[in-house]
Amino acid sequence: MHTFQQLAETVKNYFNQESFTGTPNQLYEPIAYTLADGGKRIRPILLLAANELFGGNIESVRYAAIGIETFHNFTLLHDDLMDRSPVRRGKPTVYRKWNDNTAILSGDAMNILAWRYFLRTPHDNLQRILQTFEKTSMEICEGQQYDMNFESRDDVTIDEYMEMIRLKTAVLLGGALQIGALYANAPDNDIKHLYNFGIGIGLAFQLRDDLLDAFGNTATFGKQTGTDIRDNKKTYLFLRAIEKASPEQRQILMHLFSTNPENADNKIKEVLNIYSQLEIRNDVETRINELTNQAMHELDSISRPDEQKNTLRTIALSLLDRNV
Amino acid sequence: MHTFQQLAETVKNYFNQESFTGTPNQLYEPIAYTLADGGKRIRPILLLAANELFGGNIESVRYAAIGIETFHNFTLLHDDLMDRSPVRRGKPTVYRKWNDNTAILSGDAMNILAWRYFLRTPHDNLQRILQTFEKTSMEICEGQQYDMNFESRDDVTIDEYMEMIRLKTAVLLGGALQIGALYANAPDNDIKHLYNFGIGIGLAFQLRDDLLDAFGNTATFGKQTGTDIRDNKKTYLFLRAIEKASPEQRQILMHLFSTNPENADNKIKEVLNIYSQLEIRNDVETRINELTNQAMHELDSISRPDEQKNTLRTIALSLLDRNV
Repeated sequence: MHTFQQLAETVKNYFNQESFTGTPNQLYEPIAYTLADGGKRIRPILLLAANELFGGNIESVRYAAIGIETFHNFTLLHDDLMDRSPVRRGKPTVYRKWNDNTAILSGDAMNILAWRYFLRTPHDNLQRILQTFEKTSMEICEGQQYDMNFESRDDVTIDEYMEMIRLKTAVLLGGALQIGALYANAPDNDIKHLYNFGIGIGLAFQLRDDLLDAFGNTATFGKQTGTDIRDNKKTYLFLRAIEKASPEQRQILMHLFSTNPENADNKIKEVLNIYSQLEIRNDVETRINELTNQAMHELDSISRPDEQKNTLRTIALSLLDRNV
Repeated sequence: MHTFQQLAETVKNYFNQESFTGTPNQLYEPIAYTLADGGKRIRPILLLAANELFGGNIESVRYAAIGIETFHNFTLLHDDLMDRSPVRRGKPTVYRKWNDNTAILSGDAMNILAWRYFLRTPHDNLQRILQTFEKTSMEICEGQQYDMNFESRDDVTIDEYMEMIRLKTAVLLGGALQIGALYANAPDNDIKHLYNFGIGIGLAFQLRDDLLDAFGNTATFGKQTGTDIRDNKKTYLFLRAIEKASPEQRQILMHLFSTNPENADNKIKEVLNIYSQLEIRNDVETRINELTNQAMHELDSISRPDEQKNTLRTIALSLLDRNV
């Protein structure tokens, strides 16, 4: 069994050994740009770890790993365009560096490129593997649509929010694990537990992200904080605050989340102040812990020797133990 | 063997029996809108005809047929957004009826939906079939990129133009035929001829389209004429005219194709006048005939009884024999 660090190194090598060039340049250059030094690459790492847990040879899922990461980056590319996000991983996003049409078309090509990678390796169960990938892909589109719908609604519930982040974020972690396990012909019952493990850590990861955006240290988080509040994003924190707020606090929150001041510092401070009064941070931490515990319980239920699950445990904890 | 009309009816039924709904509505509604009464559906018809030519039962390619048409309509949806085309098949395009983000995301979902359909039917050779679909999909993105590149270039050659329309238009006809044949386990050599047949009629079809846009009768063509000239599109007609033009004519053409008058009637008249002087229409007709003859020769070379090729012949001629 490889460790988390070894798998991270393996995935890095897979990408370094791959060329994303082609003609016309204008189509392929933004793809190579997007996939260069691309973040934590947690999804291909999960895919490899799941494969190995069931006795797979990780070399057999090299292209599935590249495929899942290519797909993930395609969704980021199009999301950044739709959300008008100017920066990703410290670099200008594709629509900003080039233009909208380049972002649309290169994104489409990346979506197709993901399939090319998945199709490179034969497997007796290829149809089922690809159906898992397809289902996951579609759910992510559904999640993004819900996210966009929520922008113009002021009655979003916490349940709806959890379903949105399940689709937008968690299913790709679950899907990556499931695909890795399918390549190793894992039993159905184990695949179910593994998938649920992925969903659990995906949900917890997103709630941690919401928390970090509000209370994180910019230096350790790597992103500006308070952006969700500035952009009036109805995160778990906001929805929980609305649930708990007094009529007066509710009115202030609703008002603040309808403003777009040039300098958002005071707005952020006021919202954080209400979050503190309502002990929102504590509530989110509690929910994250519940989700993490449930996820670990799913991992425990898998019919493999416990010590072989250590890599997946380490990956999960590294995802969730970011400093607030 | 079914006739062209029977296959067209079959494809129509396939679509009528299919539901394209889902949640969230905002994602699926534009998909159903795009696929409703969707044009000639020539690609799924070709796929069925190719399948039957090699002894396939067309019911076995029902979902591949729906998949190829879904993919085609996805490309139209995103192309219309990129080209800012307001109308398609007499209806507002998706980005106009809804907005840009809806067009981006519903298009992405349609691309994925095409894969869902392809994955519905098992086949011993599924990997190869899907690789054919993937390669075709990617080439269409490349073709669209070349088309966009050509807008800002004034040195496009006829060879480059033919390569662009091969990628943007012809490979999907070739790919549909190839996929239909692969489902029926056709011999490789026949598949090659069938693919070339598709490329040939695809190229001829696009040149016919260029011709109709300039010289067609609006009523029979179903589209406004002169739009390529109005929009400064460097079609085969324009590139051939530039090749044959006197220095003076060349200067006039280049000038006219750099203008965007509010009322384009005079511009269109002047360009058509030069096309007439240079006998461009005759040149394009000749090229269309050459391509058609080559395509028919490829069809003749396929190792199946000649009378079984009549359906494909009829489809090809119906595509190309539109009135000018």
